Amino acid sequence: MTTEQHDRQDKRNGGYEGWLRYTHIEDAYKREAYSVRCSQLQIMGESPVIHTARTELAAALDTMLGAKPREMNGTGGESFGIIGGTIDSFTRCEARIPEDCHLDELGEDGYVIQAEETGPIWLFAASDNGVLYAVYHLLRLLQTDQPIGKLSIRETPVNGLRMLDHWDNMDGTIERGYAGNSIFFRDNRIVADRDRIRDYARLLASVGINAVAINNVNVHREETKLITEPLLPDVAKVADVFGAYGIRLYLSVNFASPIEIGGLDTADPLHPDVSAWWRAKAKDIYRYVPTFGGYVVKADSEFRPGPFTYGRNHADGANMLADALAPFGGHVIWRCFVYNCLQDWRDRSTDRARAAYDHFKPLDGQFRDNVLLQIKNGPMDFQVREPVSPLFGGLSRTNQLLELQITQEYTGQQRHLCYLVPQWKEALDFDTFARGEGSTVASAASGALFGTKLGGMAAVSNVGDDSCWTGHPLAQANLFGFARLAWNPALGAEEIAAEWTAMTFGADPEAQRVITDMLLDSLTIYESYTAPLGVGWMVNPGHHYGPNVDGYEYSKWGTYHFADCNGIGVDRTVRSGTGYTGQYALPQYERYESLEQCPDELLLFFHHVPYTHKLKSGKTVIQHIYDTRFEGTERAAMLVTRWDSIKRSIDAEIYRLVRERLVQQAEHAKEWRDVLNTYFCRKSGIADELGRTIY
Amino acid sequence: MTTEQHDRQDKRNGGYEGWLRYTHIEDAYKREAYSVRCSQLQIMGESPVIHTARTELAAALDTMLGAKPREMNGTGGESFGIIGGTIDSFTRCEARIPEDCHLDELGEDGYVIQAEETGPIWLFAASDNGVLYAVYHLLRLLQTDQPIGKLSIRETPVNGLRMLDHWDNMDGTIERGYAGNSIFFRDNRIVADRDRIRDYARLLASVGINAVAINNVNVHREETKLITEPLLPDVAKVADVFGAYGIRLYLSVNFASPIEIGGLDTADPLHPDVSAWWRAKAKDIYRYVPTFGGYVVKADSEFRPGPFTYGRNHADGANMLADALAPFGGHVIWRCFVYNCLQDWRDRSTDRARAAYDHFKPLDGQFRDNVLLQIKNGPMDFQVREPVSPLFGGLSRTNQLLELQITQEYTGQQRHLCYLVPQWKEALDFDTFARGEGSTVASAASGALFGTKLGGMAAVSNVGDDSCWTGHPLAQANLFGFARLAWNPALGAEEIAAEWTAMTFGADPEAQRVITDMLLDSLTIYESYTAPLGVGWMVNPGHHYGPNVDGYEYSKWGTYHFADCNGIGVDRTVRSGTGYTGQYALPQYERYESLEQCPDELLLFFHHVPYTHKLKSGKTVIQHIYDTRFEGTERAAMLVTRWDSIKRSIDAEIYRLVRERLVQQAEHAKEWRDVLNTYFCRKSGIADELGRTIY
Repeated sequence: MTTEQHDRQDKRNGGYEGWLRYTHIEDAYKREAYSVRCSQLQIMGESPVIHTARTELAAALDTMLGAKPREMNGTGGESFGIIGGTIDSFTRCEARIPEDCHLDELGEDGYVIQAEETGPIWLFAASDNGVLYAVYHLLRLLQTDQPIGKLSIRETPVNGLRMLDHWDNMDGTIERGYAGNSIFFRDNRIVADRDRIRDYARLLASVGINAVAINNVNVHREETKLITEPLLPDVAKVADVFGAYGIRLYLSVNFASPIEIGGLDTADPLHPDVSAWWRAKAKDIYRYVPTFGGYVVKADSEFRPGPFTYGRNHADGANMLADALAPFGGHVIWRCFVYNCLQDWRDRSTDRARAAYDHFKPLDGQFRDNVLLQIKNGPMDFQVREPVSPLFGGLSRTNQLLELQITQEYTGQQRHLCYLVPQWKEALDFDTFARGEGSTVASAASGALFGTKLGGMAAVSNVGDDSCWTGHPLAQANLFGFARLAWNPALGAEEIAAEWTAMTFGADPEAQRVITDMLLDSLTIYESYTAPLGVGWMVNPGHHYGPNVDGYEYSKWGTYHFADCNGIGVDRTVRSGTGYTGQYALPQYERYESLEQCPDELLLFFHHVPYTHKLKSGKTVIQHIYDTRFEGTERAAMLVTRWDSIKRSIDAEIYRLVRERLVQQAEHAKEWRDVLNTYFCRKSGIADELGRTIY
Repeated sequence: MTTEQHDRQDKRNGGYEGWLRYTHIEDAYKREAYSVRCSQLQIMGESPVIHTARTELAAALDTMLGAKPREMNGTGGESFGIIGGTIDSFTRCEARIPEDCHLDELGEDGYVIQAEETGPIWLFAASDNGVLYAVYHLLRLLQTDQPIGKLSIRETPVNGLRMLDHWDNMDGTIERGYAGNSIFFRDNRIVADRDRIRDYARLLASVGINAVAINNVNVHREETKLITEPLLPDVAKVADVFGAYGIRLYLSVNFASPIEIGGLDTADPLHPDVSAWWRAKAKDIYRYVPTFGGYVVKADSEFRPGPFTYGRNHADGANMLADALAPFGGHVIWRCFVYNCLQDWRDRSTDRARAAYDHFKPLDGQFRDNVLLQIKNGPMDFQVREPVSPLFGGLSRTNQLLELQITQEYTGQQRHLCYLVPQWKEALDFDTFARGEGSTVASAASGALFGTKLGGMAAVSNVGDDSCWTGHPLAQANLFGFARLAWNPALGAEEIAAEWTAMTFGADPEAQRVITDMLLDSLTIYESYTAPLGVGWMVNPGHHYGPNVDGYEYSKWGTYHFADCNGIGVDRTVRSGTGYTGQYALPQYERYESLEQCPDELLLFFHHVPYTHKLKSGKTVIQHIYDTRFEGTERAAMLVTRWDSIKRSIDAEIYRLVRERLVQQAEHAKEWRDVLNTYFCRKSGIADELGRTIY
């Protein structure tokens, strides 16, 4: 092997290829069947994205089928092959388009894959991106062993914006990163070698991601300079890498930029010098990066500057930036994660859960139409279990973006297995009842519910320069899963898990079943040994790893559980608590307000109850805590056994990497179990009914 | 004013001069009375220390009396003046020595100050250091307004070694430092400008300190190199600065030095290459630093390397180093702070309090006579309240050094006022009964109790490059107080406080009284709002500032309180607990073992009791916790008022600095009060009898 081949082999072994391994199809019969249809191809057009589509398709077929496909020139006369392009390009070359495709109804990034028993496989799309997505779709069929004899596929993404946010700092660190250092930055510079960025863009494009923000929403001194001319040429290079994969680049910006890099003495959004500065800045940026997506802004949150400093509101702040970007087609993505992070723990009337709604609901309808409000799935901060943010449904005249967290800050930090798609599905499927039954979060976020112009889903990436990208090889499933949901929130968690497993681990059905099941079980396992019944936190402050029941109980962060010797939980009812439940529409308000109706898994989020309160399961709260922690720990230990059972089907390096983490998880689950059980046993004085060891 | 005068003025204002301000005596009558006796002087001898004594005396008298004293030449014929020197120097110049001075019985650093109504003031000493100490003693009399008409003073230090340990790192940081950065190191080099070190040496010498270790006992990579030839010339320069003040320089060394800087592949103390390496190393060091004091060693403790790695014990390790230093008169100071810092919190049989005794008692008598075991006052780690380490009294054939902590790691970090001398006094006066009644810790440490050859007291300094040296200006009293106690452990806490106050703040009797009282109250105030009844910790992990009741409860550090809904405390009895009480001799063992006899303030250190347990005060434990926290917080607030009452007598800058900290303390005391009260109220379910606000 050459060194290059060696490197590639190394990368493959370590999980570097992710779900795009394109392994050689060993079954000669299957390979032959695919080869008949795929041995020649023609992808029309000349743009970078089309070039990517063509190259990717050719290389993938070469690897999977063992022969380089031939490039065709004609369009229509052939009896087989793959022919793809935008509708325009087909029209230009006067090619025949099957009539029943209804191409005129395809959305911007949609595509059609059409094939009869004989003849070519057609890939039609409205845009270059659509062609690229169609290519990846076709390849996915081959990767997952699907028949391609007769195809009639029609896909349109539900969400316009399908975005990944990176919390990368220019020194190379990643805030809440658990997979190594940044692939974008090192030593306060943008990396010169962009191969890794290209490989990342390829993974993202293959599942339809069309936007990335590459720097941390906490924009520190160095990162503030990303929109200045010394750095913009390098930003442009990164934008070009992503651009060839149909992905637009965004930057997180510092609201105080006019002061910090602009030489002004104010960042007041209503000051004419400030808006002029941002207008000029937009011009600069688009001169270097014509495809620039826009800004992501965390303002007036966790010590970041914002319009509040000047007595302005968030609409004032966002609209000023939006006006500056509008001439160039840019967006402002404005985060709703705004709350008082200097709360006095003694103050029982303030409720952090209320904050986003209280801040932004009154501003509904006041934002420009190139502003999107980015709203976390829950009202707190990416806990393993939270209710859905009532801003969904609450805002009806504002573009929205659902924000999820792929990086596992509170869900095991990629040392614990935690497949998050079921959690996200719950959020997406949640019915806000804002316009009657069926007013799901998914439809609010996409814009369909209220007919808002822009919408979509964004998530904090879990990727770093780790060999397998995500620290835990199985955590790739979360990156994949988010993207698939962003494309189509109606996909099922199991369907996504199975698809990812097949693409990543190949054809062995036993291994596929075991891995898929492990993924699907993992969230409930993780939840069952960590903070119980939706109460959240109970983690070590700062890094957020490992159990610490009172870790945030007397802090300024507004994240309390109020456990005493009698009971636990936060009363967020209108009747006797903080009134947070009132932010939901009926009947969700009534459901959460009522102790009887409130679902068990969110009980302590909404109610303060005695340890002896009976859950719907018939167990008391305290016994539930004990039982689930014991069971969860056993189930965590079983994950190791389950993984070991498919050892022979798994690449040795991946097997080792995953096993190491599963063993660590099993051990750490015991620590969670014992700390929580001991804490609550000491506090409640109530013994475990089964007399198991509590310290 | 010249710039230099300005600097000096600035320094004075900020507390830089400490207790050596030598302010001009305004009262003309007093000044005249002193001047009559002190207007000429002769200090015999030529060594650097004698030179220091002469210069210091002349400069101080000049400042205080407003006239430079005249240098004399004769010795005996004069009718007034100050005549000082070693006995040898008096003998050499055939001077008359008063017969009743019994100079032959003066210990190494002792001195006699002798004066009749008329005639000279005589300063006699056995050593140059003694002369210097006599000079500072005489000056202290003037500073504190004492009559000097007739003097018959005879002082001999009780402890041979009176030492300060610095936990300074070469990057300039100080572990557990609360007064700025290191005065010795910056950017991984020894500082070039040694003026500040000289000023520090002067402060120390004035109160009899004769040894310093300048680098952290946690010897990291850079500090390991301090004993290598590139750095030794700079070490020598620092040693010379201290040497001129009679202070010997020690270094903390890395037990793994033979590997890390010696190129060996072992640090096994019994390996001949290792002992040869250390012998050669000693030679190197003494070539550069002939007055080198020796090594301070933290081995096999908190992840530091040590002899355990090689299956050797601490005597093997210490003796090997001691043999290498012996030819040069060097000491090995070997710390007994050795315990399992990876304890499983679930393991109730291991007791960190037992560790030092369990490790070192079996080795008693096996150490070389140039080894001193450095033993912390308590068995844990410098908590506001601990019993005395049972190693005192436990070791009878080993040189000992009592280790105290001046830097306020667990006692308010120099943001809270906490005069520690009363705590140290309790430890020193504690009767171990090792050789019957009166077997005090003070006598064990000095060597008097068992007739061990070396002994003394060491303490972790609270000094940094802060303008007043100690962050909190009143924290200087702890530095001063430690040194005074190291000289004479029989001095009283009040006596020392009054002396320091008079020297530092001058003659206003009202201010003296207020400050002395504030100092004397401060320890009980601090104790009353922090961890109760001797249980310790309850601080935030890592930095150790501020309340966090469960902060270390589920950690690996062995520092637990075991609070549950019924009670709190650690059962360390022989009868039913960890057996720690058995490390004490009778009757202390019985006293601690017995729930009835155990003193309230240590109750939770030795016993686990219900919250309803009645203290000797008649209060229940829980009510005591509430009451003391409420009272302590009120008393903390009163410190501000008391300080304000003497505003007019205090230098404006010092007034401001102290006030700022007192206000911060009062605020922070509330946080302590509320977190602890809330924690215990929630946990016990028992309400405050007085119905005060608990959150």
